[in-house]
Amino acid sequence: MATACTTLLTESSDVAVSMWVRKAEVAEDLRKHRENKRLLPGVPLPESVNVTSDIDEAVKDAEYLVVAIPTEFLRTALTPLAPHLKKGLPVISVIKGIEKETFFRPSEIIADVLGPRPVVALGGPSHAEEIARRLPASVVAASGDIQLAKQTQQLFSTDRFRVYTNVDIVGVELAGALKNVIAIAAGICDGGKYGDNAKSAIMTRGLVEMNRFGSALGAEPTTFSGLAGVGDLITTCMSPFGRNRKLGEQLGQGESLEQILSKMDAVAEGVNTTRSVYDLAEDKGLEMPITTEIYRVLFEGKSPDDATQTLMTRPQREE
Amino acid sequence: MATACTTLLTESSDVAVSMWVRKAEVAEDLRKHRENKRLLPGVPLPESVNVTSDIDEAVKDAEYLVVAIPTEFLRTALTPLAPHLKKGLPVISVIKGIEKETFFRPSEIIADVLGPRPVVALGGPSHAEEIARRLPASVVAASGDIQLAKQTQQLFSTDRFRVYTNVDIVGVELAGALKNVIAIAAGICDGGKYGDNAKSAIMTRGLVEMNRFGSALGAEPTTFSGLAGVGDLITTCMSPFGRNRKLGEQLGQGESLEQILSKMDAVAEGVNTTRSVYDLAEDKGLEMPITTEIYRVLFEGKSPDDATQTLMTRPQREE
Repeated sequence: MATACTTLLTESSDVAVSMWVRKAEVAEDLRKHRENKRLLPGVPLPESVNVTSDIDEAVKDAEYLVVAIPTEFLRTALTPLAPHLKKGLPVISVIKGIEKETFFRPSEIIADVLGPRPVVALGGPSHAEEIARRLPASVVAASGDIQLAKQTQQLFSTDRFRVYTNVDIVGVELAGALKNVIAIAAGICDGGKYGDNAKSAIMTRGLVEMNRFGSALGAEPTTFSGLAGVGDLITTCMSPFGRNRKLGEQLGQGESLEQILSKMDAVAEGVNTTRSVYDLAEDKGLEMPITTEIYRVLFEGKSPDDATQTLMTRPQREE
Repeated sequence: MATACTTLLTESSDVAVSMWVRKAEVAEDLRKHRENKRLLPGVPLPESVNVTSDIDEAVKDAEYLVVAIPTEFLRTALTPLAPHLKKGLPVISVIKGIEKETFFRPSEIIADVLGPRPVVALGGPSHAEEIARRLPASVVAASGDIQLAKQTQQLFSTDRFRVYTNVDIVGVELAGALKNVIAIAAGICDGGKYGDNAKSAIMTRGLVEMNRFGSALGAEPTTFSGLAGVGDLITTCMSPFGRNRKLGEQLGQGESLEQILSKMDAVAEGVNTTRSVYDLAEDKGLEMPITTEIYRVLFEGKSPDDATQTLMTRPQREE
């Protein structure tokens, strides 16, 4: 995603981009080959991008810090940066997820490690590879600081990358994490061959749950009808490559969580998110039937068929 | 869809079901083989269903009339029924679409032909074949007459078919027609290989347009976040079989509308709906950028790439 961001930033704006890479040898390799062979083979890193593993060199004249680090490594990776950043330097986060122990959103981790500063979150359907290959995409830049959201819109927009603004960073960040729970449910529909009707229904009713949970945590309901909500949910539930959907698919085929996890090289984030959301919803007395059933399938050995039966035979109600 | 409805009704409720078929020879064939070989091969018609081409026999003791006729044939097919129906006999419509010349919703055609009577519309992701094969599905029963919506919920619910109620029949019926326009756009993304990001974004921003148009015609915005809105939109844009998505796919591959229509045995409804919605939106001064571009591609020979370019380079705005 960092590489994808450099292609957007150098194309759209007359800005100098430095890319900070933690390991000196990785930086050296990127400088030499101008290509991230492991994650984005065939996509050239723009010539004007300065790649460095020296924090000071990377941030000394920075007007914005773009952070593209997976949630689970975010706290550790940001810590050495903290003393080097100018006071008030705004942060643009392209991170999706939620911290396992704290249930912090990425912007909350950023504030916790880097101190209070303006943060904007980019959300929406945004597979890095497609962006880097210049396929069209539309995203949302969300911040309580609407000027920062507008600056981000300016910085990132190209004729193939459209950026909307939104003031609801809480909703955009929560949607980016909650969708992974519903993607497991959608994957179960695929694996169990429940059909298109069932999969669409689980996504739609899943969106209702995401919205209910988000609203209880201060998000705006309209955000869940937007690019970070339904938009990202669709890609995540439909793309054959997503880890969370894939994990659900294997559950639907009858494999156990242990079997599936033993074959995966990275944990599907939705597993931890399901546990956190389930616990928080219980605390707050929120009705989350799909999340509850995914929790029972993941952690209590309930079969996907029994979970489906429970969902389908709940008391009749209004939409 | 009629056959699918008989499987639900005979399974869930202790009701007698008569199926009226216009042609005597088709009725005879159905009675003999208990199978709709052309449309639902392999699905047995429940033994208790009485199949007849005699209108009086079909409706004489009816407490509800379930109508499952494609929009384009609805007016003609209902006309002979009109004199045979009890005053106030409620109608359950499972029809999606909009009338070409009048822009009437199915319930408006029903009222026009059968006179004023309570009508409820079933909407949501509901491929008939999946329902008939007992795969899980969730739909919404919408009526201004909430008691009728609840009765419909009772009549149709099974342990694999979940029915929610909603008072917004205008929104449910409009969503069922408008999604076909967006399905053409989604198909263009498939045919042009624009990627998952683009397809999700067009569906999400398409939903915004559906909502804007529906609200101007008296629909409730929340309906578009529900099963008849985003739920049906997802199935229609994702299923490889849908005619409207398929037509879009061929447009995206560079074929002209004439070439595509010459190969299709039935018109994709979205083509006519696009024209009607475009005209009405112009009249009402509604901003419908995706519908406008689909109109230009369909009727003015604009290339899908140019239409995409127009959409991506519109003035920057809030979500």
